[in-house]
Amino acid sequence: MSGWLAVAGLGPGDDALITPEVRAALDQATDVVGYIPYVARVAPRPGLSLHPSDNRVELDRARAALEMAALGRRVVVVSSGDPGVFAMASALFEAIEVQPQHAGLDIRILPGITAMLAAAARLGAPLGHDFCAINLSDNLKPFDLVERRVRLAAQGDFAMGFYNPRSASRPHQFARVLEILREECGGERLISFARAVSTPEERLHTVTLSGARPEMADMRTVVLVGNSTTRRVGRWVYTPRRAEGV
Amino acid sequence: MSGWLAVAGLGPGDDALITPEVRAALDQATDVVGYIPYVARVAPRPGLSLHPSDNRVELDRARAALEMAALGRRVVVVSSGDPGVFAMASALFEAIEVQPQHAGLDIRILPGITAMLAAAARLGAPLGHDFCAINLSDNLKPFDLVERRVRLAAQGDFAMGFYNPRSASRPHQFARVLEILREECGGERLISFARAVSTPEERLHTVTLSGARPEMADMRTVVLVGNSTTRRVGRWVYTPRRAEGV
Repeated sequence: MSGWLAVAGLGPGDDALITPEVRAALDQATDVVGYIPYVARVAPRPGLSLHPSDNRVELDRARAALEMAALGRRVVVVSSGDPGVFAMASALFEAIEVQPQHAGLDIRILPGITAMLAAAARLGAPLGHDFCAINLSDNLKPFDLVERRVRLAAQGDFAMGFYNPRSASRPHQFARVLEILREECGGERLISFARAVSTPEERLHTVTLSGARPEMADMRTVVLVGNSTTRRVGRWVYTPRRAEGV
Repeated sequence: MSGWLAVAGLGPGDDALITPEVRAALDQATDVVGYIPYVARVAPRPGLSLHPSDNRVELDRARAALEMAALGRRVVVVSSGDPGVFAMASALFEAIEVQPQHAGLDIRILPGITAMLAAAARLGAPLGHDFCAINLSDNLKPFDLVERRVRLAAQGDFAMGFYNPRSASRPHQFARVLEILREECGGERLISFARAVSTPEERLHTVTLSGARPEMADMRTVVLVGNSTTRRVGRWVYTPRRAEGV
C-alpha cells in the first residue's frame, strides 16, 4: 500500500464550499489530522481514524502526519479556509525541512475557499481591486512588522483583509491597527467585520473607520478594509475596477 | 417565477475545484452569461441558454444579466477563479450603481478558488505569510499606480501574486515590474510562474529574480513572488510562518 499526504482546505464552514477534490481526498483517507474544530467537521466512518489536536502544535501535527504517510497511510491534514493562507501548508514544509527524508513522499496541497474571499462574496466585492492579506497575530512575528505592513498597504491604497484580528491575550493591538488606519485613510473609509462566514452564526457589519471599535472583532472574524474608492450600493459594499493615479 | 442572479467562480480550470454551491447554481440556472472561454466550460442542457460575450464588455454583460433576472430568469454570471478577485462581481455592482432599480434583486456572489491560491497550492506554500494581490494590467488604472504598489509591497516584505502580468499590447511593463523587484528585493528572491494551473496545459517554473525574464509570463500566467524568507524544500517553494522585524 502506497501512502500519501494531502493538506486540504475545508473552506470557511459551509459544506457546500468544500471542493470535490477535497471531498475525494477525505473519502479515500485512512487518517485525518488537524486542529480539533476542523477535524470535527469530518464525518466519522469505518476505516477512518481521526486525530484531533490542539492549537499551536502545528509542527508536531505535521510531523505525525508525515510519519503516518511514510508508513503507507493515506493522510489528510485539514485546515479551515485555504491551507496555504495562514494555515497548515507552511507548517508541513517546515517539518519537511527538519526531516528531509520525507521530501520524497506523495504530497499534495488542495486549495480551499479562504475566509477573506468568502467574506468578500457575502459583502459584495470589497476586494475587487488590488488587496493585501495580513495576519494581525503577533504569535509568530513582532507586532511592529504588523504595524509597518498595515501602514504601507494603506499608503499604497490597497484594500486589506485581516486574519486573526483580535484575541483575549492581545486586545490592545487591534485598537492600534484601527488608529494607524484612521491616520492613513481618514475616518470615512469603509471597514467590514465578517464573523463565522457561511455558518449559522454568520454576522456581517460594515461601518466607517471613525465608527469602528476594537470589540467588533474576535478570533472568528475576518476584517476587510476598503480602498479609497470602496463604497456602498444598496445593501452591498464594493470596490470598483477602475483606479486613478496616486 | 422569481428571478435571481448569481455571480459564480468556476475556479482555475479543473472541474474538481468547482464548489458544490456553484454547481447547484449552474444546475438551477436558465441562463449563463460570461466571457466566451468561461461560458464554454458550462455543459449545454435543455432549458439552459448560454450567452457568451467578448472580453472588455463587462458592464454590458452585467447589465444584460440584471435585466434577465428582473424578468424572472435564473441567471449565473460566470467568472474564472473567484468572482471578487479582478472579475465580474465589481462590474455587476458598477452596473447596479447606474441602474439602481436592480438593487433589490435576489443577488448572490458565490466564491471560487482564485488562480493565485490554486497556483500557490501547486507550488507548495509561497503565500504562507502576509501577501498582496496586484493586477498588473493598465487597462483600468495608470501604470504608475502599479509601479507604486509593487514597490510598497516589496518594502513591506509582502509575498505577492500578480494577475494579468503581461499581454502582447504592453510587453515592456512586466519587464519594468521585474526591474523594480530586483531593485527592492535583490537578485536572489524566488519568483514562480504558474501557467494554466489545474488544466492539461499547466506549467510551473520557479527561478530567482536575477534569472527571471519577461517572456516567462503571458496572460494565462499568475506570477508569485516570495518574501525575504521564501525558500525551496525538495521540489516545493514555501514561505515559513515566522517572520522577523524590519
